[in-house]
Amino acid sequence: MINVGIVGGTGYTGVELLRLLAGHPNAQVSVITSRGEAGTPVADIFPNLRGIIDLEFTVPDVKILSACDVVFFATPHGVAQSMMSELIGSGVRVIDLSADFRIRDIPTWEHWYGQTHGCPELVETAVYGLPEVNRAEIAKAQLVACPGCYPTATQLGLIPLLEHNVVDPSRLSVSAASGVSGAGRQGKLDNIFSEVGESFKAYAAGGHRHLPEIEQGLREVQPSVATPAEVTFVPHLLPMIRGIHATLFAELTDTNVDLQQLFESRYRQEPFVDVLPAGSHPQTRSVKSSNMCRIAVFRPQGRKAITVLSVIDNLTKGASGQAIQNMNIMFGFKENLGLEAAALLP
Amino acid sequence: MINVGIVGGTGYTGVELLRLLAGHPNAQVSVITSRGEAGTPVADIFPNLRGIIDLEFTVPDVKILSACDVVFFATPHGVAQSMMSELIGSGVRVIDLSADFRIRDIPTWEHWYGQTHGCPELVETAVYGLPEVNRAEIAKAQLVACPGCYPTATQLGLIPLLEHNVVDPSRLSVSAASGVSGAGRQGKLDNIFSEVGESFKAYAAGGHRHLPEIEQGLREVQPSVATPAEVTFVPHLLPMIRGIHATLFAELTDTNVDLQQLFESRYRQEPFVDVLPAGSHPQTRSVKSSNMCRIAVFRPQGRKAITVLSVIDNLTKGASGQAIQNMNIMFGFKENLGLEAAALLP
Amino acid sequence: MINVGIVGGTGYTGVELLRLLAGHPNAQVSVITSRGEAGTPVADIFPNLRGIIDLEFTVPDVKILSACDVVFFATPHGVAQSMMSELIGSGVRVIDLSADFRIRDIPTWEHWYGQTHGCPELVETAVYGLPEVNRAEIAKAQLVACPGCYPTATQLGLIPLLEHNVVDPSRLSVSAASGVSGAGRQGKLDNIFSEVGESFKAYAAGGHRHLPEIEQGLREVQPSVATPAEVTFVPHLLPMIRGIHATLFAELTDTNVDLQQLFESRYRQEPFVDVLPAGSHPQTRSVKSSNMCRIAVFRPQGRKAITVLSVIDNLTKGASGQAIQNMNIMFGFKENLGLEAAALLP
Amino acid sequence: MINVGIVGGTGYTGVELLRLLAGHPNAQVSVITSRGEAGTPVADIFPNLRGIIDLEFTVPDVKILSACDVVFFATPHGVAQSMMSELIGSGVRVIDLSADFRIRDIPTWEHWYGQTHGCPELVETAVYGLPEVNRAEIAKAQLVACPGCYPTATQLGLIPLLEHNVVDPSRLSVSAASGVSGAGRQGKLDNIFSEVGESFKAYAAGGHRHLPEIEQGLREVQPSVATPAEVTFVPHLLPMIRGIHATLFAELTDTNVDLQQLFESRYRQEPFVDVLPAGSHPQTRSVKSSNMCRIAVFRPQGRKAITVLSVIDNLTKGASGQAIQNMNIMFGFKENLGLEAAALLP
Repeated sequence: MINVGIVGGTGYTGVELLRLLAGHPNAQVSVITSRGEAGTPVADIFPNLRGIIDLEFTVPDVKILSACDVVFFATPHGVAQSMMSELIGSGVRVIDLSADFRIRDIPTWEHWYGQTHGCPELVETAVYGLPEVNRAEIAKAQLVACPGCYPTATQLGLIPLLEHNVVDPSRLSVSAASGVSGAGRQGKLDNIFSEVGESFKAYAAGGHRHLPEIEQGLREVQPSVATPAEVTFVPHLLPMIRGIHATLFAELTDTNVDLQQLFESRYRQEPFVDVLPAGSHPQTRSVKSSNMCRIAVFRPQGRKAITVLSVIDNLTKGASGQAIQNMNIMFGFKENLGLEAAALLP
Repeated sequence: MINVGIVGGTGYTGVELLRLLAGHPNAQVSVITSRGEAGTPVADIFPNLRGIIDLEFTVPDVKILSACDVVFFATPHGVAQSMMSELIGSGVRVIDLSADFRIRDIPTWEHWYGQTHGCPELVETAVYGLPEVNRAEIAKAQLVACPGCYPTATQLGLIPLLEHNVVDPSRLSVSAASGVSGAGRQGKLDNIFSEVGESFKAYAAGGHRHLPEIEQGLREVQPSVATPAEVTFVPHLLPMIRGIHATLFAELTDTNVDLQQLFESRYRQEPFVDVLPAGSHPQTRSVKSSNMCRIAVFRPQGRKAITVLSVIDNLTKGASGQAIQNMNIMFGFKENLGLEAAALLP
Repeated sequence: MINVGIVGGTGYTGVELLRLLAGHPNAQVSVITSRGEAGTPVADIFPNLRGIIDLEFTVPDVKILSACDVVFFATPHGVAQSMMSELIGSGVRVIDLSADFRIRDIPTWEHWYGQTHGCPELVETAVYGLPEVNRAEIAKAQLVACPGCYPTATQLGLIPLLEHNVVDPSRLSVSAASGVSGAGRQGKLDNIFSEVGESFKAYAAGGHRHLPEIEQGLREVQPSVATPAEVTFVPHLLPMIRGIHATLFAELTDTNVDLQQLFESRYRQEPFVDVLPAGSHPQTRSVKSSNMCRIAVFRPQGRKAITVLSVIDNLTKGASGQAIQNMNIMFGFKENLGLEAAALLP
Repeated sequence: MINVGIVGGTGYTGVELLRLLAGHPNAQVSVITSRGEAGTPVADIFPNLRGIIDLEFTVPDVKILSACDVVFFATPHGVAQSMMSELIGSGVRVIDLSADFRIRDIPTWEHWYGQTHGCPELVETAVYGLPEVNRAEIAKAQLVACPGCYPTATQLGLIPLLEHNVVDPSRLSVSAASGVSGAGRQGKLDNIFSEVGESFKAYAAGGHRHLPEIEQGLREVQPSVATPAEVTFVPHLLPMIRGIHATLFAELTDTNVDLQQLFESRYRQEPFVDVLPAGSHPQTRSVKSSNMCRIAVFRPQGRKAITVLSVIDNLTKGASGQAIQNMNIMFGFKENLGLEAAALLP
């Protein structure tokens, strides 16, 4: 049984961590922090946890957090940076769900996040927590930077194509859509039911923060001879709570490749990537509350243009579930421990 | 580890049984039947179960079912009756989620369900599976008739009042609302998204099948001196998938009673009934996917008229979760085994 | 063609006024105010009005407003009071959609709204703008206080019963449910999609501001011999945008009354109240975007307890549509002018 | 005042025609047919039309329909073909909302719709009813084939680029999403609330019937020197009722073009195409219930890959509204007559 600390637990990735860890046989949350809600019982904020989690939120305290076996950051961007040096210095292992340590190039991070990076010296040591790519490094890492939700769905859908260099890396288009929980637990006008219900829209079509993360991740799996991947990324907001769907467009350079076989063999051993039978379409509800990513690949009309469909739950495989998957790897647990539950349907 | 059979597993109570039993440490589904889908893998119908349930639907066969330790019926009303004699004769224990054995008075059942009862001789032996009332009888029962979803939410909200005879039993009004999953997994016009989305309506306001079940259940907990409970019951259809909310109106006859204390002491030992602190309002999302019932009681303006609010997930505590709770009691397992998971929020 | 001013047009009743008045043949909006958005084009806030409304929001100015033929207040409670004396003094006619002038008893208003009334001297002159009751007074009024959304649906459903004194006025229970737009266009956590989607809850079960308004309205239509109406009122929040549904419980004192006939004859001449055929259930979607109220009445099992179902669009008949209906009456226009459009379905 | 007949009015395009025509000053529906519902009052099927439309459905009768000035077909594919020869022979003008006469190449139609074409001789005379392209031909047409919903949104978003040949016509990708009403008013399992609510999925990713219609439409506006347009088209199903959003990806061949100016000048005179200011994102709710198409164009990161966003209401500009726009053109009415109402928001 390991002791878990959570920094910044009042958001949706916080409650998802708590829900999943409450059912984890080898982990126990011993501290959860929130400056704004210090002293409030967790179950007062999250009524689903009444009778399940008895903790109160506390003010973050590095000494207490250092006594944990692992600390999750479920904070807005910029917060983890400010505490990371001290925490890492204490030897505790850290899994950061925010974007603070995802981007290796500091100026790129600072450009997209509009702030000076508060802890650039640790960026290089951070391991990008996509187990399907970096499993071995994650196992040894002290600091894991969990991928974003859109980047997870997108990369898992494109990786087999780019690893085998069978598509034109300069012609990748991504139309991705997220449930509203991706916008966080915040009382902003843009998030209210009467504004987003019964409607659909793109946003940040001119440039979204997840673009550099996606391109970085894709380039790392490309063979060195390939042109660096370049992506057009358009995110959309869905009138639903959970789920991400990525529709990926690419152009085959090798028209002899067996796409179905390529995807199936790439992910055969992966516990959380499910390549659907040819002709199937993944639905976000098939992964709701679960850590699974489901993928399908199409080559319509036998043309060179192909389509990959990839779905995850943005709060689970897109955030807290993947964070726990990383934890399982780091501590040598079975990778799906605490993450075996079937998706909730209907 | 007990062997479980499920008859009629292609509906939403079927997939909910499968989801919950997949995580149950002491039970394993060995057979699941469906005449219409015989030969189809379960995961083809329910994409959330890919990689989790490897069974195919089979034609129901009493011999095979009799070899199970327990058989669940997740069938439309009228089906369980036709197989029950033979099954019960074989000695297997049965938990029926349909309405076939809920109503003790055969003519009443036949009136409301519009058909001749196919197995009246077993009605008397059936135990009404509301553990909060009949726990001891359930433990010994061979045939358990699981309560309906509306009756569960309604009875749990009214039982403390009626047991203590503190309200006028002839003046009980129930305004209850259900998510669309309560109407089943059927391609009927009345269930389609464009008909029920962004709308709310009452239905069966002139009389709903759950009324006699509710009145029967309430009368059984009343002291013998009391006037038999009489309920006005109006169900409504919500533009959402899961959840039942019952708003219960009653009139105090004893204005000195401490309502909060009455409810808290009645349910203190119950693992699946949570009386909220005074002034709280239960939300259906706080019990989504869980077996919990959450209740609050109000006495507005200090008048004699009081209000009780009661929420459950119609597919869990209102159907499949409660069925598994019954199974746990019948087999001497811890009552919440396989049912501990927190509700999914958001 | 009359000139219309709107004070406080950045909320949902504001945009609904603009949408409806844009299609009104005898009225034209010449000024719309908002302190916070002064200088912003209306169409920047409400993208549905691009190309239809060319106005900008301006700072409220009594001189300019006084030059209008009629001024609507679509402001939060408390604002209309502060400008009313000066406006009324100028002779302009005013239709207030807020609660400021609905309650005749000043201490009652101050108790429920938690503030000192800013203009008590005008309360008595205000006419309660429920045309089905006060049509003649509205025609002559200078100041009309438009009813709230819940009070409109509730009163229209109960008035025939109370006018004819056929139910026990001390035993009225109301279970009403509103779409989220009733909570306004405000970035509060309680309103965000991930908090209210796929969920249902009661709120303010201990006492809601609309209770005194409902009781006042009902008492005014009761015959003088009757006991003053007393209501238990429980509002609920629906996971949808528009619509109110009121489920009304009463107890017959006269069991010989023909309820269907009572309702039909009461509302036969009303352009905006539609009594459904016996056995029908009104759906909120049948009135979405329209000014119609649809009502059905039931006497289940032939008992004394009866049920009335009443639906409106909270933003139309429950607010802006009814305000325009009042305007039409005040200016001698056909009562349904600009309000004839069919509800939007699906 | 012209007399209008509607064939097949029990679907959502039927009720949308009725809603819009009820407010049209120059048109009156005199007959509406449905074999299945003959004898049923329209308002029994569509409760929003109670008190507004007094017609009953009748069995289709060419003699009666021929007496109309114009007949709309709101039928499933294949039906209009069977009656068209006789109707056209009678001289009546026809606006077909189905796909029967959209595709000029008969074998292509038969391939995608899986049936033999029942009236190939009239295909050539039919005018494709996209007013923004074919206004003059529509004015003179006897038979107008209204565009599909996806093709309308997609073509309007791509036409300026293809007319000016500034993008590579062989590299067009379309990720489009529709509300559930696009699947019609049919009691199919795939359409029920519990299956499509809170979920998002692509469908027909291997090939959708609207693909040949889109490619045909685009090729007709390309300059003759251009390579014929080739599109990858992936439709998706949204958990909402109304609205289509098309996200269009293209690759600039001319990087000097001013995209914003190109779109604005192309559509400046169009009453129903609104090019948003640079940087804006159209929302489907901004066009709900209206005949407007709103478009935005982006060139992210200054790369060659560009994105166009285009939204319509699938039942209005995507079907019945556009049909009435065509009617207005055919009869010399102002093009926006009966179609001026603002979109419903929220």
